[in-house]
Amino acid sequence: MVAQWMREAGLEPGLDATGNLIAVLSGERPELGAIGIGSHLDTVPHGGAFDGALGVLAALEVAQAMRERGVRPTRSVAVLGFADEEGNNFGIGVLSAQLWIGEIPPSDFDTITDANGRGLDAYIAAFDVAGVPRVERPELAAYLELHVEQGPVLDADGGRAAAVEAIVGISRTTVRFTGEANHAGTTPLALRKDALLGGAELALAVRDLGEATGDRAVTTVGVFETLPGATNVIPGEVRMRVEMRSPDEGLMDELRGRVARAARAAAERHGLAVALDDWHHAPAVPMHPTALRATQDALADAGLPVRTMPSWAGHDAKVLARRMPTGMLFVPSNGGISHAPGEATDPDACALGAEALFHAVVRLAESDDL
Amino acid sequence: MVAQWMREAGLEPGLDATGNLIAVLSGERPELGAIGIGSHLDTVPHGGAFDGALGVLAALEVAQAMRERGVRPTRSVAVLGFADEEGNNFGIGVLSAQLWIGEIPPSDFDTITDANGRGLDAYIAAFDVAGVPRVERPELAAYLELHVEQGPVLDADGGRAAAVEAIVGISRTTVRFTGEANHAGTTPLALRKDALLGGAELALAVRDLGEATGDRAVTTVGVFETLPGATNVIPGEVRMRVEMRSPDEGLMDELRGRVARAARAAAERHGLAVALDDWHHAPAVPMHPTALRATQDALADAGLPVRTMPSWAGHDAKVLARRMPTGMLFVPSNGGISHAPGEATDPDACALGAEALFHAVVRLAESDDL
Repeated sequence: MVAQWMREAGLEPGLDATGNLIAVLSGERPELGAIGIGSHLDTVPHGGAFDGALGVLAALEVAQAMRERGVRPTRSVAVLGFADEEGNNFGIGVLSAQLWIGEIPPSDFDTITDANGRGLDAYIAAFDVAGVPRVERPELAAYLELHVEQGPVLDADGGRAAAVEAIVGISRTTVRFTGEANHAGTTPLALRKDALLGGAELALAVRDLGEATGDRAVTTVGVFETLPGATNVIPGEVRMRVEMRSPDEGLMDELRGRVARAARAAAERHGLAVALDDWHHAPAVPMHPTALRATQDALADAGLPVRTMPSWAGHDAKVLARRMPTGMLFVPSNGGISHAPGEATDPDACALGAEALFHAVVRLAESDDL
Repeated sequence: MVAQWMREAGLEPGLDATGNLIAVLSGERPELGAIGIGSHLDTVPHGGAFDGALGVLAALEVAQAMRERGVRPTRSVAVLGFADEEGNNFGIGVLSAQLWIGEIPPSDFDTITDANGRGLDAYIAAFDVAGVPRVERPELAAYLELHVEQGPVLDADGGRAAAVEAIVGISRTTVRFTGEANHAGTTPLALRKDALLGGAELALAVRDLGEATGDRAVTTVGVFETLPGATNVIPGEVRMRVEMRSPDEGLMDELRGRVARAARAAAERHGLAVALDDWHHAPAVPMHPTALRATQDALADAGLPVRTMPSWAGHDAKVLARRMPTGMLFVPSNGGISHAPGEATDPDACALGAEALFHAVVRLAESDDL
């Protein structure tokens, strides 16, 4: 369907070696590399109609508008529809973007398998869209992506679009408090080593530490297990996972230190042992300064207030930013709902977001600063 | 083995209709009813050698000492070894004591079954101790029980024995906080309804409420479940169980109210719904004034300081107290350890406890105040 819409817009759709849909609007100087614009065509199971799809259609609208308005950019513009961002088939998020930048070599394709043991190589061999030819991936000079926010921030105050300053980093720490499981009747309070008290204090401290950053970080305890878990036994152990997200790597480092200090203080107050394991750290990815400025200026071009915010979720742009100047624009998610059928964005916000994307593409296509 | 020791002490062992071991030392006026003394002969799986057994052997020692010293009490003295206190066979605690006082009628015996479906009636029919005849249960005028404390209080300051003022009541409440499970990245802290925060606050408040009673109550959150329990999802629900124990029924009522108010305050602070279910309440059982005085005076008779404390665990005495004047004596559990192989009480404390039991029995056997 999207390939057909590409044709209707006067473009030639093609499929790259791993199933991504591509349509290129040639610029004056194709040798400078294209400005890639788009997002992903897949959704989570029982998801909504906007996450990913809106970014592809807005990109197509931008290319079509350029043709209709007779705009011939210096750099080419490549409309991209990534095939697999949500990880539905192989449990690997942003897979197509990783394949695009060559992070996963073709020699590994047979080792990536779905729940039934079918390999990525078999998926690729079988993938076909009738009438759409295979094409080489265009060389990209930069990447721009319009996406729904997937959170409630813009919708909360009627914002229509925003430039993304960075995709937040994610840091995950497992904390284990060990006390002494004992009789909940015969053990006086003063002689207890109740692991739950350490865990509860840390859960509240983690929230306070996040709030103290003034919206520069979110902190969550999503996993909190209490053992042995019997009505008449004092908890001997708590295992909890602390997740921190921030666009600011320095702040993330500070927060990890503060969480560790809070955990040790809680353990000491309640006579517990505590062990921390920082088992996951995906660094924050700042948008490229030129691309960020282009998206901010594009908001003004579209008559919108210049608003900048972090992306608290991951996107194709997070991967492409490892190889090229990358920028993002957000439009609101009504009620903050995403990955659900109720996902929606008002048509006027979609249109204004696409208009901002148009201006950002024009700015980057003409930029000497990439 | 215990039946043989009864014979060696010059007593005639007998089994009642439900397998309890009985040996009676006749008093001057058997028609006044006997002073029952003893405890239970069973243990938990992989338990220790003192919980229950010490009380039976101390009772036998008391009867033997009376015979050896030529003490003939006014009331008879019945040494009792209860068959099933720990609930190993049917999951019903203090079962033999309940059978003794007739709370479970014989017509219900076939409805009480073990894990394999074998009924209490089948157990009773098959139960036999070679050479020990069936006897009628003696009429009891009062009951006294010596038991290990099963907690660390006496051992903590070198106490040798104590009179029990009451067996604590137990109150159990399930608290359910409901918030909103949501994306741990894209949902700003200020817009969250994080059920864990309500649960954590209440867990700490429950501890504080217990501490504020000054050792007149213990409060425990033993079960604390956080749902859905994923690293990157804000907890939408917490289910926790609050247990309170106190010898003071009025205080228990107050505590239930304070816990409910703390739960509602925590829910309001974090935008949560909260539901409370008081699903279990076993009232505190005070010892009979005459029996309590007898155990206190008996401590002085044995040259010990007169010390009085609650029992924070249940005992056969808790059941018998529903039908007759009942008292208890505690000896220390070294390190507070119980229901484990390391359970131990120093021999001198066992001896002093048995001596105090002797004096308490003499006092009750002669008392006009039962």
